[in-house]
Amino acid sequence: MTQKAVFYHAGCPVCVAAERSVAEALDHGRYDVEVVHLGEDKRRVAEAEAAGVKSVPALVLDGQAFHINYGAALDALK
Amino acid sequence: MTQKAVFYHAGCPVCVAAERSVAEALDHGRYDVEVVHLGEDKRRVAEAEAAGVKSVPALVLDGQAFHINYGAALDALK
Repeated sequence: MTQKAVFYHAGCPVCVAAERSVAEALDHGRYDVEVVHLGEDKRRVAEAEAAGVKSVPALVLDGQAFHINYGAALDALK
Repeated sequence: MTQKAVFYHAGCPVCVAAERSVAEALDHGRYDVEVVHLGEDKRRVAEAEAAGVKSVPALVLDGQAFHINYGAALDALK
C-alpha cells in the first residue's frame, strides 16, 4: 500500500530544482507522489497551510511538512 | 547503478524527524543513502561544506545540497 506524499511548489527555479531531485528521488513504490503548483492552483493553499506548510518548496510526508531550501551557490551567479 | 545520497544531521530532534521521513522515503533501489552525524564525525564537516551544506539537517542528492527544515507546530509546544 502506498502512502501519500505531496510536493508543494510555486514554479520558482529553486522549487523546480528541488522537485526534480527530492520528489523524484522518493520511492514511488511506497509513495504516491503528487506535485501541486500553488501558484496555479490557489484553491489548495488552505490545504497546504493545514498540513503545516509555511513556505515553498515543501514536502508533506506522512502528514509532516518539511520545508526544503536549496542553497544555490553564489559562485553560480558570478 | 545507484547514486549516492548523503543525509547530514547533528542529532537534534528536527534532524531525527527529517531523517526518519525524508531519508527513508528515498528510493533505496536508486540511491545509496548514507547518514552522517556531523556532531559525532566532525572530520566530515569539511566534506559537507564542500557539498554546499550550510545547516543541518541537509540532504545532498546528485551533488546538490537541500536544506530541510521541519516547521514544528507551535501548538505542539503549548
